[in-house]
Amino acid sequence: MNLARVARTPSELREWIDGDVGLVPTMGALHDGHLKLIRLSAAENATTVVSIFVNPLQFNQAEDLEAYPRTFDRDLELASEAGATIIFAPSEETLYPRGFATTVSVAGLTERWEGAVRPGHFTGVTTVVTKLFTIVRPNRAYFGEKDFQQLAVIRRLHTDLDLPGVVVGVPTVREHDGLALSSRNSRLSKKERRLAKIVPTTLFAMRERADRGQTDVGALLAAGHAVLAQEPAVAVDYLAIVDPITLEPVESLARGSVGIIAVRVGETRLIDNLRLRQLL
Amino acid sequence: MNLARVARTPSELREWIDGDVGLVPTMGALHDGHLKLIRLSAAENATTVVSIFVNPLQFNQAEDLEAYPRTFDRDLELASEAGATIIFAPSEETLYPRGFATTVSVAGLTERWEGAVRPGHFTGVTTVVTKLFTIVRPNRAYFGEKDFQQLAVIRRLHTDLDLPGVVVGVPTVREHDGLALSSRNSRLSKKERRLAKIVPTTLFAMRERADRGQTDVGALLAAGHAVLAQEPAVAVDYLAIVDPITLEPVESLARGSVGIIAVRVGETRLIDNLRLRQLL
Repeated sequence: MNLARVARTPSELREWIDGDVGLVPTMGALHDGHLKLIRLSAAENATTVVSIFVNPLQFNQAEDLEAYPRTFDRDLELASEAGATIIFAPSEETLYPRGFATTVSVAGLTERWEGAVRPGHFTGVTTVVTKLFTIVRPNRAYFGEKDFQQLAVIRRLHTDLDLPGVVVGVPTVREHDGLALSSRNSRLSKKERRLAKIVPTTLFAMRERADRGQTDVGALLAAGHAVLAQEPAVAVDYLAIVDPITLEPVESLARGSVGIIAVRVGETRLIDNLRLRQLL
Repeated sequence: MNLARVARTPSELREWIDGDVGLVPTMGALHDGHLKLIRLSAAENATTVVSIFVNPLQFNQAEDLEAYPRTFDRDLELASEAGATIIFAPSEETLYPRGFATTVSVAGLTERWEGAVRPGHFTGVTTVVTKLFTIVRPNRAYFGEKDFQQLAVIRRLHTDLDLPGVVVGVPTVREHDGLALSSRNSRLSKKERRLAKIVPTTLFAMRERADRGQTDVGALLAAGHAVLAQEPAVAVDYLAIVDPITLEPVESLARGSVGIIAVRVGETRLIDNLRLRQLL
């Protein structure tokens, strides 16, 4: 297998780009969720750029940044196998040169849910994603639906700043027991991994009730919380049913309504979401 | 004479662009300073896009926004004559669609001088300029040195967000008595217009002393203030000698040091600047 070329600077990257360009932004530690994005991009674009950059701006805590898994050689192989043609792996000094002073932020959407728990996190995301769009100039950029709020924020950013190409949201990849793939799953102990199953179980239980015609949001959330109560060791940060664009809680179930959840299992924070009613 | 085409939306604009693109961002009310930017762009690019958009985000006061001169038909003629090929004149709804929530800001550089007097002003500028860069994707973008701090902020923004093309700073155009051209000059009464001459006179007096070998910043500023004192009706907001990149006050005159000034003449605020020692 040919490995993808590794570009360390924007100018190297631009030189190697040819034809339609797909962008898959990652922080490395690639799993099957990322690989699905890469395969989709490779099917739709002549060039697929996978960026690997552990973005210090989006971490709230220095330890969390330190602890983030870095597996570059393995990532390079996996991404190449999935169809990546260029890995863009800039240094911190390349993306944030001396004197860097610019911030891109999205109001409203970023204030709830993950934004409330992780102050500054989304500003770090929107700043680096803006740079990736302006550097790579993709025809299509692929983001997982697993980070549902992040995807909504990026869609808003993309529209507001007239960034190039289109944003493609890609459905979440799940383990056999339903757990959404995440780089954080590797931090779970065996016991915690068993407990974590309650997260998708809760969402699927809510969708089942929605499928049977329940539209009362209070009743759906009560059903979800009843499931969660089966694992008292799992601490719930939030469980909500929201509008897919504004992320505001809905009063009653509507087209596209999404169940969102965040929990802590031991030291690890997990998030997930599931569409409870089809968009169309 | 053929008039430039008027694009109201980014997609119209993109359709008409051909070859190298120069961008001249304006808020209309074009004067010879703008026309110099347009002529320079027309000499260097196949397509010259002049944007005309009175950007509500960069006004602190609603009255100031209301009062801003709007002279579209005349601007269209003047810009066309100077070599503009496309006028980009979007509506407010086009640039800031329903739900618009994104802000681009530059820290540090924007906090002093004009930023201190006009809170939020530079954030409005950097947000709209980012959009103009992503919409127009210029090879070269032209800004007047008259707004010296704005130019420094835009250079920082352009580097930090990897915006396309290069930023070209263009020397200030002055009236016969030295007054820098500005859309605001039209607000001056005849008497105020005479008083306003003290602004360039101050800067040129400082440069003359610098040319004669004075490098002591305190002495240069004292000389400037002595000139300003000849017109007590002119209220001084600031007079300073700064580094051309950081805009921090310098301790002694160095290569590239710039004198900057802001005054109020009646109701009108005027700014100006002059390089006191050559960069090279």
